[in-house]
Amino acid sequence: MTTNNQTIYYTLTDEAPSLATCSLLPIVRTFTSAAGIDVKISDISLAGRVLSAFPENLSADQNVEDGLSFLGELTQDPNANIVKLPNISASIPQLKACIAELQAQGYDIPDYPEAPKTDAETEIQTRYGKILGSAVNPVLREGNSDRRAPGAVKAFVRKFPHSMGKWSKASRTHADYMRGGDFFSSEQSITMEDAGDVRIEFVDPAGNVEVKKELSLEKGEILDSMNMSCQALRDFFEESMNDAKETGVMWSLHVKATMMKVSHPIVFGHAVTVFYKELFDQYGELFDQLGVNPNNGIGSVYDKIASLPRSKREEIEEAIHACHEHRPEMAMVDSVKGITNLHVPSDVIVDASMPAMIRNGGKMWGPDGKPKDTKAVMPESTYARIYQEMINYCKTNGAFDPTNIGTVPNVGLMAKKAEEYGSHDKTFETEAGTMRVVAADGTVLMQHEVEKGDIWRACQTKDEPVRDWVKLAVTRARQSDTPAVFWLDHKRAHDAQLIKKVEKYLQEHDTDGLEILIKTYNQAIRYSMDRMFHGNDTISVTGNVLRDYLTDLFPIIELGTSAKMLSIVPMLKGGGMYETGAGGSAPKHVQQVEEENHLRWDSLGEFMALAVSLEDMGIKQNNSRAAILSKTLDAATGKLLEENKSPSRKTGELDNRGSHFYLGMYWAQAVAAQTEDAELAAQFAPLAKTLTDNEAKIVAELSEVQGTAAELDGYYHANRDMVKKVMRPSATLNAALAAQNA
Amino acid sequence: MTTNNQTIYYTLTDEAPSLATCSLLPIVRTFTSAAGIDVKISDISLAGRVLSAFPENLSADQNVEDGLSFLGELTQDPNANIVKLPNISASIPQLKACIAELQAQGYDIPDYPEAPKTDAETEIQTRYGKILGSAVNPVLREGNSDRRAPGAVKAFVRKFPHSMGKWSKASRTHADYMRGGDFFSSEQSITMEDAGDVRIEFVDPAGNVEVKKELSLEKGEILDSMNMSCQALRDFFEESMNDAKETGVMWSLHVKATMMKVSHPIVFGHAVTVFYKELFDQYGELFDQLGVNPNNGIGSVYDKIASLPRSKREEIEEAIHACHEHRPEMAMVDSVKGITNLHVPSDVIVDASMPAMIRNGGKMWGPDGKPKDTKAVMPESTYARIYQEMINYCKTNGAFDPTNIGTVPNVGLMAKKAEEYGSHDKTFETEAGTMRVVAADGTVLMQHEVEKGDIWRACQTKDEPVRDWVKLAVTRARQSDTPAVFWLDHKRAHDAQLIKKVEKYLQEHDTDGLEILIKTYNQAIRYSMDRMFHGNDTISVTGNVLRDYLTDLFPIIELGTSAKMLSIVPMLKGGGMYETGAGGSAPKHVQQVEEENHLRWDSLGEFMALAVSLEDMGIKQNNSRAAILSKTLDAATGKLLEENKSPSRKTGELDNRGSHFYLGMYWAQAVAAQTEDAELAAQFAPLAKTLTDNEAKIVAELSEVQGTAAELDGYYHANRDMVKKVMRPSATLNAALAAQNA
Repeated sequence: MTTNNQTIYYTLTDEAPSLATCSLLPIVRTFTSAAGIDVKISDISLAGRVLSAFPENLSADQNVEDGLSFLGELTQDPNANIVKLPNISASIPQLKACIAELQAQGYDIPDYPEAPKTDAETEIQTRYGKILGSAVNPVLREGNSDRRAPGAVKAFVRKFPHSMGKWSKASRTHADYMRGGDFFSSEQSITMEDAGDVRIEFVDPAGNVEVKKELSLEKGEILDSMNMSCQALRDFFEESMNDAKETGVMWSLHVKATMMKVSHPIVFGHAVTVFYKELFDQYGELFDQLGVNPNNGIGSVYDKIASLPRSKREEIEEAIHACHEHRPEMAMVDSVKGITNLHVPSDVIVDASMPAMIRNGGKMWGPDGKPKDTKAVMPESTYARIYQEMINYCKTNGAFDPTNIGTVPNVGLMAKKAEEYGSHDKTFETEAGTMRVVAADGTVLMQHEVEKGDIWRACQTKDEPVRDWVKLAVTRARQSDTPAVFWLDHKRAHDAQLIKKVEKYLQEHDTDGLEILIKTYNQAIRYSMDRMFHGNDTISVTGNVLRDYLTDLFPIIELGTSAKMLSIVPMLKGGGMYETGAGGSAPKHVQQVEEENHLRWDSLGEFMALAVSLEDMGIKQNNSRAAILSKTLDAATGKLLEENKSPSRKTGELDNRGSHFYLGMYWAQAVAAQTEDAELAAQFAPLAKTLTDNEAKIVAELSEVQGTAAELDGYYHANRDMVKKVMRPSATLNAALAAQNA
Repeated sequence: MTTNNQTIYYTLTDEAPSLATCSLLPIVRTFTSAAGIDVKISDISLAGRVLSAFPENLSADQNVEDGLSFLGELTQDPNANIVKLPNISASIPQLKACIAELQAQGYDIPDYPEAPKTDAETEIQTRYGKILGSAVNPVLREGNSDRRAPGAVKAFVRKFPHSMGKWSKASRTHADYMRGGDFFSSEQSITMEDAGDVRIEFVDPAGNVEVKKELSLEKGEILDSMNMSCQALRDFFEESMNDAKETGVMWSLHVKATMMKVSHPIVFGHAVTVFYKELFDQYGELFDQLGVNPNNGIGSVYDKIASLPRSKREEIEEAIHACHEHRPEMAMVDSVKGITNLHVPSDVIVDASMPAMIRNGGKMWGPDGKPKDTKAVMPESTYARIYQEMINYCKTNGAFDPTNIGTVPNVGLMAKKAEEYGSHDKTFETEAGTMRVVAADGTVLMQHEVEKGDIWRACQTKDEPVRDWVKLAVTRARQSDTPAVFWLDHKRAHDAQLIKKVEKYLQEHDTDGLEILIKTYNQAIRYSMDRMFHGNDTISVTGNVLRDYLTDLFPIIELGTSAKMLSIVPMLKGGGMYETGAGGSAPKHVQQVEEENHLRWDSLGEFMALAVSLEDMGIKQNNSRAAILSKTLDAATGKLLEENKSPSRKTGELDNRGSHFYLGMYWAQAVAAQTEDAELAAQFAPLAKTLTDNEAKIVAELSEVQGTAAELDGYYHANRDMVKKVMRPSATLNAALAAQNA
């Protein structure tokens, strides 16, 4: 694959970020073109991925490029330079909504077959299956992860701290997790001495062997297997609900059904059928006929019974309410609309919901719209304990104070799908029997006795990414002169394997004068919190899941959001991917645009990602103007923060578009003021002047349009022309950019 | 001083232990006399100490030996062998009650002058002052401390576990402590490079200097000074009471007014006057006239207003109740009698009350007699945080399970009054000005700006005890092959000095293969709890106060009581003191004897102490029979535990006396059965037979007397003849012992 070395690939994704792109890119291109850099759009939106999965169903003018495949190949290019915005990790309900929208727009794509009956339907399900859940990141993340809060952002927070809820020492809030029978307690792990093939097999009680999956493993590759007992899980749910009822706290569920797209929807489904046990006991058969799938939430019941006669529907609705009578109050996703924690699996995402709760003084929102203490249920104990540790810390020491705490950046293992516990092709809901991993020569490498309904999964971690991860950790520790802690639990089978590798690969580096530690998760978070509390920084060096969780947890405490983190993926092959913050609250943003034409999305993440993307371009392609653009963009971002020109949440005030204008103005001013490249300065002086002179006018134009509904004609696949009209409403700004590009 | 090398000095103390002694000693002497060992009583009871302070007031037949002075001298003798039972650390109300009792018995001793007006009264107050609080231990503890749970006791607990309250994850209970303005945050500490005199001085705002105390310090001695702000303390109390009221938890106070006999009563008094603020605002002047001292508790108000006319008294009682209206519920010492946490300072002893609460699932008893979650208030943050750490641990992991947890023995620094934070002669309630420590040459070594009402104190730690303590820690770690953790916080001024010494003195020992760590209190308790939870043992090596706290905390969790701990003081001069368990609940025991003639006191501590005392006698005096008696006593104790012949709490069942009988029987059987010394075996065979044959009869005789009131004629100074009658009611047993001694 050959690419233009002077190209930045900028992803078109979904929801708020994709709207923001429409406003931001014209400004960015105005600058980059002056450095000979092309900023190309690459469509990896959910709708784009759906369409590109069925080229044969589309007319010639409907056909779209498979942006994800293209970028996937690009990651192998040492010159790759990708700016990646947050995208939807689709749950089944989201996928179905997207399909329906596209069909309505005239795209002849098939329905999602929940229970395929023909080979053709199975083929369709397989194609859609590749789009579900965490489908994008594993393809693009061909490197490990380096995430941190830029100095300018920390400085901003010290000046304009986000609100933090008060923690009461008497808070009842706690994390609740399984004490046995879960993945953690059953985990087994091996490291391949040589490359080789293995089979994942199921053996039934009669001794019949079914090969579930064949894998080719590399030398040094780690393979884990683990099982969650269905019975233990259901007992745990029952007990936790009874305990919450007795002790008078709300009950809330925190899983990650989007990322762990096979295992966690099943876990979620058990929560639904335990909570509404009597309902499913009574109407189970009817529900089966209707195609209710509890893994899609209690919302699935409401959807499916809509087709029933009114009296029957009301009878079932009463049965639902009857269940609530003897169950604890549930945390609400939307108390006004009565949407609970168990409505749809994609609403409760542990890595976003837990930090929000902790930031909110340990409270979630109750059915009466009031904040209340909660039993936060996270069945997988592996990671849940870090939240309990932080809850205890906040109860003891009070809420963290953003104006004086240190920072906990992350170096995360994720290259080559390392530790992809969501790996759906190696996750199975089992029958009673034995699940085992068998070597080519027949040796049984690992095995678990399983019962019907258990969730068994395997997971791979290749050696090269681990070695690169250790190197990245040492590099970051050295560059930032900060202690680095590997979060590895010697009592966990997988981590025990990793620890051996870490100890080995650490010897390849000069660690003189560095503080590099290995601690269990509990010890590590406690150590990091203690240091943070006293204003000191600590690098967390973690596996993939903790990477995902911690890069929301600490940023939300430190910065109020993870969107302000700098997120770099130095790729194994030499390229770089620059990710922007998480999209956890993006759906709400779109609603606000549709209703009031105000986009609260903060593109700070894009600004920061572009700055490092340009910096990299400057170094690798020896493009001095790229280097200047990077420095001036950083300066503009700093100024924007200092002047508090980030988007407001309130309609009528500065929004995403206004914030882009200010970035453009500050950036043009900075380029015009720099002295390294006089020609470049001269080139941008007129733009700087025009924007500066017209500041009030442009801001007014951007404000005027707000307050009334905006037409986008689509949620997953909005009309780009209508989006453009909505997102670029300032004639003065548009004219100024056009003049500069002329 | 010369002593008979074959003498064990057995202390006569107070309350239940002194009653038990009356029953136990005749049995013990029956055995020891066979080894040529004399067991001598030494009276260190509160009454005995009071009487010996005023020899000139007593008639010849009333005069008593000063047992404490005698034992104090004995500690310097390499042959010293002392068995020390728990004694009263008297608060002022206790001392006054004791004086009143002695006066009523015809002893012409003076009243305790609360506010001395003459030189004579001052002299009297000074004499009494030496008796108050922790007066005995600092005199006798001429060595460091080695406390552990004997294997037989751990085995017993695994077989007969004590009850443990369930911990709810949603518990609101927590420890609350000052975040600034307390001793911890103000602590300063120096180490003397050479021996020298220093002065503790107060400088008033006009520059006038008052010498409060002169000290001669040794080379290498550590001197600390610290201040607690009166205002910060009162603000903290107010805030904690408001928070408890708001969050709906009870409020309880946990100090150690008996040991910290100057500083903590003042702290306690502030709690009283903050809680009852309106009362003291309104009646302050009257209370001053009446001589109310809030440091003696709200009980002092009730006492003093008893003399007022009924109508006035009722008015004040109503004002007291009015205060309760807007204050949180308070934890009760006795909910039936309405005795709260603030009634008298000697009722709430942090080291006993906190473990009891933690053992009880984090609950204390409310005014309605029900167990409830509590805000446990401990103003001094230095040590309070360990309780919060354990509370968090129990919320997260549930209550500890006595049948499978490890043990946390203690090696404690206490020789030569090391870290005697209770040191009343160096504690001052200050006026506004400066408190400072000045060297002989005028150099100011440490100083604090103080306000009126602040509590300033200094504290000494000599070098020799530290060196011995480090040695004892290494010795114990080696002997038991157990990790040893020094609980030292580098952020605390005093500990920073100690850490230097520990690191230096550790080099004097072979620590190869030993795990010897230094951790902050939080880290240390977390580490120890984690190990304990998984069944592993960890030696806690601590300073004096933590020694005191931890040797209740862990034993109460592990064994249900600290009375079952083996407590050895290997003295600096070579002698040994063998302490028996704590006497925390002894007052209740005496009440039960008086009302129902049943003594629930468990003498297990005495049995274990005697065994090590005899073992030591065997080694040091080359007394082979002592060695045999030690081994057989250990065997008898093990048998007693295994057969569950410890005292029951229920009247009518086996009590302290019956337990002594079984010990005697098992001991005689063991001596008769041993083959090392045939003559000794033969000597005890008849006793073994008599006791075995008459088991049922003796147990019946000991049971028959129970259920009706017993006359002791005194609480602090009971009539020994009447005590003897009560405590030795079995004619059969008495006759058997007499026959053996004949």
